Amino acid sequence: PKEFCAKVMGIAKMAKKLGQDDPRRIIHSLKVGLALTLVSLFYYFKPLYDGFEDSALWAVLTVVVVFEFSVGATLGKGLNRMLATFVAGALGIGAHCLATLSGRTAEPILIAIFVFVIAAIVTFMRFFPRLKARYDYGLLIFILTFSLVSVSGYRDDQVLKMAHQRLSTIIVGSCISVIVCICICPVWIGEDLHNFVAANMEKLGNFLEAFGDEYFKVSEEPQSNVNKSFLQGYRSVLTSKSGEETMANLARWEPGHGPFGFRHPWKMYLKLGNLTRECAYKVEALNSYLNSKIQTPAEIRGKIQGPCEKASRESSKALKELASAFRKMVRTRSAILHIASSKTTAEELKNLLKQSVWGEADVLEIIPAASVASLLLEIIECIEKIAEAVYE
Amino acid sequence: PKEFCAKVMGIAKMAKKLGQDDPRRIIHSLKVGLALTLVSLFYYFKPLYDGFEDSALWAVLTVVVVFEFSVGATLGKGLNRMLATFVAGALGIGAHCLATLSGRTAEPILIAIFVFVIAAIVTFMRFFPRLKARYDYGLLIFILTFSLVSVSGYRDDQVLKMAHQRLSTIIVGSCISVIVCICICPVWIGEDLHNFVAANMEKLGNFLEAFGDEYFKVSEEPQSNVNKSFLQGYRSVLTSKSGEETMANLARWEPGHGPFGFRHPWKMYLKLGNLTRECAYKVEALNSYLNSKIQTPAEIRGKIQGPCEKASRESSKALKELASAFRKMVRTRSAILHIASSKTTAEELKNLLKQSVWGEADVLEIIPAASVASLLLEIIECIEKIAEAVYE
Repeated sequence: PKEFCAKVMGIAKMAKKLGQDDPRRIIHSLKVGLALTLVSLFYYFKPLYDGFEDSALWAVLTVVVVFEFSVGATLGKGLNRMLATFVAGALGIGAHCLATLSGRTAEPILIAIFVFVIAAIVTFMRFFPRLKARYDYGLLIFILTFSLVSVSGYRDDQVLKMAHQRLSTIIVGSCISVIVCICICPVWIGEDLHNFVAANMEKLGNFLEAFGDEYFKVSEEPQSNVNKSFLQGYRSVLTSKSGEETMANLARWEPGHGPFGFRHPWKMYLKLGNLTRECAYKVEALNSYLNSKIQTPAEIRGKIQGPCEKASRESSKALKELASAFRKMVRTRSAILHIASSKTTAEELKNLLKQSVWGEADVLEIIPAASVASLLLEIIECIEKIAEAVYE
Repeated sequence: PKEFCAKVMGIAKMAKKLGQDDPRRIIHSLKVGLALTLVSLFYYFKPLYDGFEDSALWAVLTVVVVFEFSVGATLGKGLNRMLATFVAGALGIGAHCLATLSGRTAEPILIAIFVFVIAAIVTFMRFFPRLKARYDYGLLIFILTFSLVSVSGYRDDQVLKMAHQRLSTIIVGSCISVIVCICICPVWIGEDLHNFVAANMEKLGNFLEAFGDEYFKVSEEPQSNVNKSFLQGYRSVLTSKSGEETMANLARWEPGHGPFGFRHPWKMYLKLGNLTRECAYKVEALNSYLNSKIQTPAEIRGKIQGPCEKASRESSKALKELASAFRKMVRTRSAILHIASSKTTAEELKNLLKQSVWGEADVLEIIPAASVASLLLEIIECIEKIAEAVYE
């Protein structure tokens, strides 16, 4: 019993955290409840119910299945479902008529062949990457509706009525979902993608900001792992690709809203995301030098400390400025200034390296510091590319 | 018309390629067709149809929705669907009875409240990461069945019969899907995951194998981009995380088959995948030196060529041996030998670097070669960790 209590408390805490992290989740849950209650009115009011009868269940089903967290996903599913039901319903009626012409014995055989062929072909179509990205759900519903309409035509002669009822209830269900989803605190996945890409740039910026101090400080003090969590923020950027792609696919369904037009260039976001990830791979390499066993002695590191710290600070500022300019969708000069300044620092650093500041030190011990410097140079190049992409 | 022909030809070619890349896709499509045809027998045979009547449509619907490419996904969805329908059906009947007691006027209000509360709570539960990973579909079906049973109880007094029919048709549909999916050329997602992880190791091995030659060769000849595609194979490893996680989640549903037991430690695969990715990030850093603008002059590179090439060759062999041992699930000595040999080479390389082989060369030009050497050392460390994980 005590363990049980602890478990319940744990779950409650987790639920609270989930809600606090993103209050839109709570609103979404209430929205689903509302949409379902709305659609169940079709059962309670006799005039509404008489129009649909038992088919009203399709409306309920549609709301449950179509209602998603973001507007893009809901719209995409709703449109897919309506279109697929319409086309497949028409085809199903055609198949039913064709089969009826051939007599009562041949009918089931013909229909079975139709269903087999259509199901196999459409299932294979779902493997096409382009169709999978945008119309996967529609193809599924196509198979479903075609089978249902053509098969149940064998037992029920009112195929036309059935298909019509199914289509209209699904339209009603989809519309209720979409309307509730858009009208009450909408969650635009495009906005999420926008913020996600900007946040990823900021994470890299945060790392670079902290890196300079961290790298030239640590060796004297004993290493503490406690306060290093802020250095790990960039790690999520490394694996952000599939998330971005899903979001971009969904965002394309969304109508224009706020600063985003209907045909907002979401593909550019993927390009920017890829560049950010390229940069993150370099940051990952940089990070490995923080914890590396072979360290350059402090006195040698001291020689490049100034320009290195400056390069990492300026590139961090440039990234953050770019991120905030991107977030606000404005063109600022300050990011360009920081890039220019970090490029001059990079030149300084290069010259410093050429002058053989190292003296007669052990080459093996020089490598880490030198690599850090050259990685910083590469990161600055990366940031320039990001800047180009942002200003496009 | 000519454009149209070209387009159709393009699609046909693509379909052929999809089929050739993975013939299981064609088999899967035929399996879906077969399962659907099987389930539609419930309509054609009168004795079967009389048992279910119109509810037979749920069986068709279940087959379409539950049948997935892999056994794990099909089983997971089928079990989720059956369990959720059972629990939600029982709850729905309870809610209906409770509401009926309160009289005809209060009934719809009470039911509406029930539906709202349950839908909101269960929708929120879908945000829990653990539930989302394994029971997302079940929770969706829970909302669906609860709403359908409790709401349609208002118009149809035979709630019990309806819920019972729905449950039994869904069981029939799920079972047909699962049986067809397992009995005819099953696609085990666990096996796919196993091969995927092994293939990722091999990709890194291929890169390392080619790297040594490539790095010490290119500078003299003009760079050709044609034959470099084999160096890009490792790139897909960088973004493999989400794919691996999905597969591991699905694999947990699968029963024992072949060399994999029922409680096969799929979590270890994720660990191994993470280590492989760590290694891939280092390989990415290595790759950037292949195309870097600042190159170490060939004469200086020549001094470390021997051990570097050997280190990259031995580590490549070690990775490939590990991958093949992992693939066959055996413990081989040869991988350990290669690791040992690459470690000795690493020591040689370290000593070489310490001896200041560089002479009075420009430090800036030394850095790339030195970094390559030190990255190789790090990769060897990474491979040791992978070996530990493989032998666990």
